[in-house]
Amino acid sequence: MTEKTLTGKIEINVRFNEADPLGIVWHGHYIRYFEDGREAFGNEHGIGYLDFYKQGYIIPIVSVQCDYKQSLKYGERVLVETTYVACDAAKLQFRYRVFNANNGKLVATGSSVQVFLNRETSSLQLINPPFFEAWKEKYGMS
Amino acid sequence: MTEKTLTGKIEINVRFNEADPLGIVWHGHYIRYFEDGREAFGNEHGIGYLDFYKQGYIIPIVSVQCDYKQSLKYGERVLVETTYVACDAAKLQFRYRVFNANNGKLVATGSSVQVFLNRETSSLQLINPPFFEAWKEKYGMS
Amino acid sequence: MTEKTLTGKIEINVRFNEADPLGIVWHGHYIRYFEDGREAFGNEHGIGYLDFYKQGYIIPIVSVQCDYKQSLKYGERVLVETTYVACDAAKLQFRYRVFNANNGKLVATGSSVQVFLNRETSSLQLINPPFFEAWKEKYGMS
Amino acid sequence: MTEKTLTGKIEINVRFNEADPLGIVWHGHYIRYFEDGREAFGNEHGIGYLDFYKQGYIIPIVSVQCDYKQSLKYGERVLVETTYVACDAAKLQFRYRVFNANNGKLVATGSSVQVFLNRETSSLQLINPPFFEAWKEKYGMS
Repeated sequence: MTEKTLTGKIEINVRFNEADPLGIVWHGHYIRYFEDGREAFGNEHGIGYLDFYKQGYIIPIVSVQCDYKQSLKYGERVLVETTYVACDAAKLQFRYRVFNANNGKLVATGSSVQVFLNRETSSLQLINPPFFEAWKEKYGMS
Repeated sequence: MTEKTLTGKIEINVRFNEADPLGIVWHGHYIRYFEDGREAFGNEHGIGYLDFYKQGYIIPIVSVQCDYKQSLKYGERVLVETTYVACDAAKLQFRYRVFNANNGKLVATGSSVQVFLNRETSSLQLINPPFFEAWKEKYGMS
Repeated sequence: MTEKTLTGKIEINVRFNEADPLGIVWHGHYIRYFEDGREAFGNEHGIGYLDFYKQGYIIPIVSVQCDYKQSLKYGERVLVETTYVACDAAKLQFRYRVFNANNGKLVATGSSVQVFLNRETSSLQLINPPFFEAWKEKYGMS
Repeated sequence: MTEKTLTGKIEINVRFNEADPLGIVWHGHYIRYFEDGREAFGNEHGIGYLDFYKQGYIIPIVSVQCDYKQSLKYGERVLVETTYVACDAAKLQFRYRVFNANNGKLVATGSSVQVFLNRETSSLQLINPPFFEAWKEKYGMS
């Protein structure tokens, strides 16, 4: 069975204040890079945080994970590749690949899972919100 | 005319992730130290952020300023001295002195000003909220 | 076979600036809480970041993972339980449990892995540094 | 006497994790926006952090100040206008104006001062580094 996926890319500058005393980006900041990637993906494809919000949902992260392979230095540029991974369950799964844009090397990989909560009641949604189901249909992800 | 002031103290550990590639605390993090100091002061004296919130007010920062005299390293400990400076106008004025708790040296000084907004309407309050006026009275700050 | 572990605890205040527009701690900040827990553990047991550094090693994170179960609000207090999990390979494994200190509820769980690099050459150490082997011995972790 | 200045601009997205429980950008993050502005200016005009570093200097911030006039929300875009303000003394002076790029409104103003330290000895430079004096000459700032 083939996995259905959709990928987006964004480039980010490493900020001076993101590098630690070793001169490399502190590992916790990669979680920000993932969020930047997810957000760029969402804005491009119409399933950003605010799109869900306007439809009455919030989409908290329930798990995140990152494997570090290389380090990034201040002055370098980051390419974040964000991949939506379709699934039947009522959740949002993303995979991330972070590259050093200066030399093309893979720096880190990771993943995250989000669920859908009703914005007013905070109740967990066990089936996909209709507008998201429609989105999946449109992009061949259902 | 004598200035009326009230002072509180708090100690904080310098976090690894607060130090920059030079091995010293990035200058922007001092704004966090000020907030930590202000918060400890507020909790101790009953005028914390949530005290105002419960009374129907939010207290945004309208100006902040910091002068750096020494640097702080990861592994060191910070002492923040937070001083409320009474004034007639409807605002909250604080002054800060940041010390290296390891050697007692003055590391930075700063100040901040906050105003009172009605939590519902966001309208600026031109006179002090009654509970804050009572607080000033109680502490000899009016 | 029984797992050998050693556990430490630390309490942290949730900072105003750690809460996001939903009023809850932004998920990325838990990576900081893990670091705070790891650091308190290291300082207590003599295997902190600077202990390794003085011995000639740096200990970068090569993987981190977090599962979120509840949310944390500004004004609440966090208890981080950090557990060193012994293993034969040349690495540092920690598990984390984050509790809401106000009500005792489990808020998140996670884990991290660190490796040993020679501080000068950045070369990966395939066996445990001698002082760390001695530490394991002393604490019954070898 | 006319003030000699040089101005650069950069646009930044407000990150979800930069907004606080009030839904607006936490005031401390503006110090990051200033740094982003200063860095874009430095990269464009050849006096960035790394340019100084390669010449043997580091340029720590010795004072920073910010006045807040409006708030910024997640989903909005920021325009940072960074202005180098020439002076005779051996220091770097910048002024900042932060705009809401969506509606053009002025959101905040600020300033910063940096000094020159010898990278090796950390000694304060009382006269401008020669390459910076040449830069000033070239841009009509001396």
